[in-house]
Amino acid sequence: MNTPLILITNDDGYQAAGIQALTRAVAPLGEIYVVAPDGARSGAAAAITSTTPVSYSPLTSDKTQSPNPLSSLTAGTQEGATVPSPYVEGLHLYSCTGTPVDCVKLALEQIVPRKPDLILSGINHGDNASVSIHYSGTMGAVLEGCMKDIPSIGISLYLQRGQRYEDHPVSEDTLAAAAALCRRVLEQGLPQDVCLNINLPIAHKFRGWQVCRQARGRWSAEWTDAHNPRGQRCFWLTGEFTDLEPEATDTDFAALRAGYCSIVPVTVDTTAYHATQHINTLL
Amino acid sequence: MNTPLILITNDDGYQAAGIQALTRAVAPLGEIYVVAPDGARSGAAAAITSTTPVSYSPLTSDKTQSPNPLSSLTAGTQEGATVPSPYVEGLHLYSCTGTPVDCVKLALEQIVPRKPDLILSGINHGDNASVSIHYSGTMGAVLEGCMKDIPSIGISLYLQRGQRYEDHPVSEDTLAAAAALCRRVLEQGLPQDVCLNINLPIAHKFRGWQVCRQARGRWSAEWTDAHNPRGQRCFWLTGEFTDLEPEATDTDFAALRAGYCSIVPVTVDTTAYHATQHINTLL
Repeated sequence: MNTPLILITNDDGYQAAGIQALTRAVAPLGEIYVVAPDGARSGAAAAITSTTPVSYSPLTSDKTQSPNPLSSLTAGTQEGATVPSPYVEGLHLYSCTGTPVDCVKLALEQIVPRKPDLILSGINHGDNASVSIHYSGTMGAVLEGCMKDIPSIGISLYLQRGQRYEDHPVSEDTLAAAAALCRRVLEQGLPQDVCLNINLPIAHKFRGWQVCRQARGRWSAEWTDAHNPRGQRCFWLTGEFTDLEPEATDTDFAALRAGYCSIVPVTVDTTAYHATQHINTLL
Repeated sequence: MNTPLILITNDDGYQAAGIQALTRAVAPLGEIYVVAPDGARSGAAAAITSTTPVSYSPLTSDKTQSPNPLSSLTAGTQEGATVPSPYVEGLHLYSCTGTPVDCVKLALEQIVPRKPDLILSGINHGDNASVSIHYSGTMGAVLEGCMKDIPSIGISLYLQRGQRYEDHPVSEDTLAAAAALCRRVLEQGLPQDVCLNINLPIAHKFRGWQVCRQARGRWSAEWTDAHNPRGQRCFWLTGEFTDLEPEATDTDFAALRAGYCSIVPVTVDTTAYHATQHINTLL
């Protein structure tokens, strides 16, 4: 196998700690292209940008690209100490003005030199388990990769509200396990029209994988009432999530509750085959 | 059964001809609330607005709402003749600054007096068959309704590029068939966690329904290169769709090609159950 080409994106923006950790973890597996939004796109789902044009900018010192200063992105100091570069050396890094799906579409047609062998999205700062997958920009990008016939994996960290990734970073052994899984997917591929939705619990130590189904769940109490400075009423999206199957043992949330990393194989084909007969009775 | 409450939204904006036609068609079935975006949200998928607040405005002369002039919305002239009001009398009409999913979430918590008996989305100006469902704001709203345990149906018109809804409006007998289906769904409901993705061909006469599966398909050649007035390169999303199963007879595109209206039952549960065993072999 030639050096694999891996495309990485997310919905938190290229500056996010999660995508930097993921990039470092999988950098030994191949040649890395990061094409990620220029800022937060949380909740972007599989949205595409249809009413405005989209553009991208190289951010690495890659010699094939116009030079952009990398120093502001990859160096920093903390309490006077030199900290490691958040991004690894030698990758190809681009920011994009569009959605996560735009990032994948633009990367495939305009940026990467050949079809990637793997697309990764994340590590999202917040879970995408249960029905939250439907709103997830992280998983929107993954579905896009899958629809382009490329093995694609989304990885998200199950943070509670108010918890920051930086305070609960994914442990090194969990990152190593994720990288090992990526290596096996590079070797063996994934079934046609199937991608992976991985959610990680906050844990100091990797406990193992569990292949799960998507939990039934529901968001409620979703709006916080506010007023803008002109006195006009407006609403901020928030919400409480309820796991509708708290006793189940085979769902993504059950795995997370037990401290395991959940893997849900996700289908591009949304047909509810079991319902076909019932729908025919309505006609 | 009390008078059913029907919530209608779309992703083309409340001014669109498609949502007005749908509203007129189902108005006899119950009390109608239209809560739709204030402009185009094509390709919004199930995106939610997480970084800015969202607001809504009443647009009807509903006496319970602050008065807003309706005249500019519901009257018009064409070649000197008086045309029917595009929206029916007596409905509750609101515009919303958010996405289609925001419209549903905001309507359910802030606008409608009780849980709707049915949520409709459309009629979209363009199809949402095959994998286009993943990008569809029309179907994002439908999935949201389904996740809130409300029977939900999306309806889209299969226009070719450059064709306008106004030049190819859905025929009256097709609208009547759609309304009859909505009536049966009001009476009998839909299976748990299943909603409907309906696509209509351009046709002068309703030929019938076909319950289908989602066709395998692929978008390619998705970007048109351009420059903004400052000379910077940018990209407009476009694309060519390929039906990967042109010989199939049981897909949504097969039904549309044959002149039938396709109904795909769509599942909220995205788990690829058939792939679970294979994924376990990767661990």
